[in-house]
Amino acid sequence: MTSAKPKSGPRDERGVLAARILDVARESFAEHGKAGTTVRAVARSADVDPALVYHYYGSKDALLEACTTPPPEWIATIAEAWGGPTDQLGRRLVAVTLENWRNDEFAPIMRAVLLIAAHDDGIREKLRLIVQTSLMGPAAIGLNDQERLIRAGLVSSQLIGLAFVRYLWKIEPIASMSDAEVVAAIAPTLQRYIDGPVHFPSGSPK
Amino acid sequence: MTSAKPKSGPRDERGVLAARILDVARESFAEHGKAGTTVRAVARSADVDPALVYHYYGSKDALLEACTTPPPEWIATIAEAWGGPTDQLGRRLVAVTLENWRNDEFAPIMRAVLLIAAHDDGIREKLRLIVQTSLMGPAAIGLNDQERLIRAGLVSSQLIGLAFVRYLWKIEPIASMSDAEVVAAIAPTLQRYIDGPVHFPSGSPK
Repeated sequence: MTSAKPKSGPRDERGVLAARILDVARESFAEHGKAGTTVRAVARSADVDPALVYHYYGSKDALLEACTTPPPEWIATIAEAWGGPTDQLGRRLVAVTLENWRNDEFAPIMRAVLLIAAHDDGIREKLRLIVQTSLMGPAAIGLNDQERLIRAGLVSSQLIGLAFVRYLWKIEPIASMSDAEVVAAIAPTLQRYIDGPVHFPSGSPK
Repeated sequence: MTSAKPKSGPRDERGVLAARILDVARESFAEHGKAGTTVRAVARSADVDPALVYHYYGSKDALLEACTTPPPEWIATIAEAWGGPTDQLGRRLVAVTLENWRNDEFAPIMRAVLLIAAHDDGIREKLRLIVQTSLMGPAAIGLNDQERLIRAGLVSSQLIGLAFVRYLWKIEPIASMSDAEVVAAIAPTLQRYIDGPVHFPSGSPK
């Protein structure tokens, strides 16, 4: 985690302080929403001057933006999962999701995005983009863009529901299952959404 | 909806005012959370005196409780879906979920429970109970209580994820699919969670 006190010179200090502000802000946005979060309170919790928060991030909106932007390393794990054989894609997508929830850097960001999306249109739009782009996957999935988006949307509906039940709300016994058990239970669902018979009664997707 | 102005005598008026307060409070709790909701603001939006809110509901906590308590008619629709042949249960559970989201009385309550659960431990506990009891289903599902709870938890993870993507965040194209298309896509997932091979690598559920 990045909440350690700065130890060395001013060059490191900027990164450490900026990260500490982000950690605190993310927690506040997630718990109290955008309206319930003030730069002043974030600065107080991070033990810095409010002016420093403005200096680093510019505004509350920009701070929220920074708090909910997926790190490139996270996007890379998903892109990597989409690579490789399609017939094991369901398994890889659940597995990478569970791994990312175990990652101390990624999990707080995913948590913040999901919780803030409840109340903030901007974050909801960002979530929509994350779902639509990061889950678009290779062109091999689905016959056309529309079908690919439906399949990706179904995949994300299961992964998002799993995230709420298992990680955010901690509903038992789902919260205590081993990762291997969850993968075994969920992977076939995703695989069917990816390349299985997801029939559309109207013949083809609207 | 219940936000109409009272039209007749004091006997109806109590029900109408109480319902109007509930509608306003539910919206406020869902949008601003418990911390961001005050009885005073709810009373102002409902165009009543704060004393009346206290008179009807007693406290902010009790008001929140009332806002998020599923009506018996809603529970009854789910219980009814759990009746009937098990081999069509997946389809019936998706269908009743979609119908309930179209119901002007039920949908705001489901929305409030899901959104408030993000921030409030008490509501999260309530959600946990709703999931665990209303989805326990007939004893025929699963070999024992633990397996039944796992299967019910998997069912709810998909239905909750669907609710967020389709109804709360309105992510396309999932939000615009017809109910029939969603049922066709999701029902087989639920059916597999209910009676399919949800294998547990460790042999049996922990």
